[in-house]
Amino acid sequence: MSRRVTVSVDAMGGDVGPGVTVPAACDIARTHPHLDLLLVGDAARIHRELEAQGARHIKQIQVHHASQVVGMDEPPAQALRSKKDSSMRVAIDLVRAGTADAAVSAGNTGALMATGRFVLKTLPGIDRPAIMTALPSRNGHTHMLDLGANVDCKAEHLLQFAVMGSVLVEHMSGLRRPRVGLLNVGQEAIKGNEQVKEANALLERSPLNYIGYVEGDHIYCGDVDVVVSDGFVGNVSLKSSEGVAKLITQLLKEGFRRNLLTRAAALVATPVLRNVLDQVDPRRYNGASLVGLRGVVVKSHGGADRMAFANAIHIAGLEAAARVPERIAESVHELLRHGSAA
Amino acid sequence: MSRRVTVSVDAMGGDVGPGVTVPAACDIARTHPHLDLLLVGDAARIHRELEAQGARHIKQIQVHHASQVVGMDEPPAQALRSKKDSSMRVAIDLVRAGTADAAVSAGNTGALMATGRFVLKTLPGIDRPAIMTALPSRNGHTHMLDLGANVDCKAEHLLQFAVMGSVLVEHMSGLRRPRVGLLNVGQEAIKGNEQVKEANALLERSPLNYIGYVEGDHIYCGDVDVVVSDGFVGNVSLKSSEGVAKLITQLLKEGFRRNLLTRAAALVATPVLRNVLDQVDPRRYNGASLVGLRGVVVKSHGGADRMAFANAIHIAGLEAAARVPERIAESVHELLRHGSAA
Repeated sequence: MSRRVTVSVDAMGGDVGPGVTVPAACDIARTHPHLDLLLVGDAARIHRELEAQGARHIKQIQVHHASQVVGMDEPPAQALRSKKDSSMRVAIDLVRAGTADAAVSAGNTGALMATGRFVLKTLPGIDRPAIMTALPSRNGHTHMLDLGANVDCKAEHLLQFAVMGSVLVEHMSGLRRPRVGLLNVGQEAIKGNEQVKEANALLERSPLNYIGYVEGDHIYCGDVDVVVSDGFVGNVSLKSSEGVAKLITQLLKEGFRRNLLTRAAALVATPVLRNVLDQVDPRRYNGASLVGLRGVVVKSHGGADRMAFANAIHIAGLEAAARVPERIAESVHELLRHGSAA
Repeated sequence: MSRRVTVSVDAMGGDVGPGVTVPAACDIARTHPHLDLLLVGDAARIHRELEAQGARHIKQIQVHHASQVVGMDEPPAQALRSKKDSSMRVAIDLVRAGTADAAVSAGNTGALMATGRFVLKTLPGIDRPAIMTALPSRNGHTHMLDLGANVDCKAEHLLQFAVMGSVLVEHMSGLRRPRVGLLNVGQEAIKGNEQVKEANALLERSPLNYIGYVEGDHIYCGDVDVVVSDGFVGNVSLKSSEGVAKLITQLLKEGFRRNLLTRAAALVATPVLRNVLDQVDPRRYNGASLVGLRGVVVKSHGGADRMAFANAIHIAGLEAAARVPERIAESVHELLRHGSAA
């Protein structure tokens, strides 16, 4: 990222709060000289953490006080109504005001989405924002959306998700005309429910590089760049995948710890294992984009550790530098006009 | 399994046909002395394969000729109408006639389900059969249904799936009151779509050991025994999981093949790796039960190899020996009556 970018960080969000978010911000400030960070939340606590990190004098980091915190299980409507000075809300207000170019939070997903929609509004032509993330594949990454913002979708929403996903991947990865697939239970035309069949018809008429239906295992094969589904299906797919990856990782650790012989084997095998498991480590993929808003908002996993949260800040910086919302607005206008004219 | 059981095997189904199904049947006959097998399909081809396996004189194996084969992509309605002497149809007819206690096929899932419903009919109280399989978990197995038979479900169907899953696990695994979870995008009561919220209300009133909502990663954690979802979500979850497991396996193989040093490491690490990867190998879990029919029908993956197809036959034998359809019928009657009275 070349142009100077400011990211506002909800320092209080997540399972741990400043104990994770502040060290992660320090790491990013040190490795990303073009990034400025506004740490939003309980100023006294944030300053204490900065001190503990020996980072009181990093010029890129500023602290912005906010007196409230949105609870991890707090209903979104309640958070919106009664937490107007929460770290999450203020981080997003700073984007709206133009003080920051992007906001990052590890807080409650529902509240973050509701606050993003309320404060920033959706882009013209987009009915509903979606949650999108990168996932590991055979030869790089696959991007997938929606991952849980919209549990009930109409076909037109899936078309909008496809457009947003395609634009984001094109501008973030430099891939010309990314391959877009629609998640289904089979690849034949007769497969699927009504919602998917209707969306398939809309996508076939769109100017996107639409390759048709894909199944769950294709996400990880490298033969599709953007996988589109409703938020219910996408969320289950993502979490099922994480569950299997975690199971395999745990079994490997236990397997190599079993006895003296396996421990000796582990000494030799560890570099290879670490390399492979790193490639599928959810922490490296932490940072889901709330696409469709008039501003960059990135959601970190609530349980993110320092490395994972730093990755979410990194992604927010990249999206802000690439001006993803503006690019989506331009392309949605262009593509949806084309789509409805076809 | 103690009582003598006969399994009819659609020898022509699957990507390979008799080249896989016949050797698998021979393996099972040799290791399962209480199991009789009827190999259904092109008798000449089956006999040639038996000969190649040195198995012409295994008394447990008999050949039953059928002149047609259902294509892997053939529409179910067409298969039902025009393939009345297909290996798949005849294998199921043999169950209906009482000649066999269970049928196994690696053929087209849609055609198998349609044929099963048409020939065997659904059990009283069950509107729709479902596809169910075991999956690896932290401390054993989790069973999941529906995996794709029903892409659009109502809440009552999800309740029926839960009842069938619970009964099957209780009788097959000997687990008293298995823990039943409903797949959702979060564990809080406000999460999910209307279908899931309605099903949750029905399940809470049922006499099942219902533990509430579970997320995708819980399938592999070992804290739930039966995971219920509609067929669209279940299919995507299963295939996403398979995709990740395959990606990790491939990356491990490549990682250990990279250079002389990693190949040396592989020599030492292979026993541990093989043991772990075996535990999550989809071939060991091959054999999905079509539950809710008046007879045992097990679907093998179309691409199953010898070991995987043998596993599907083994499962069919176990279910027949445990008289799973009769157990489901009894319990559905009991549980659904209780449920509607509550």
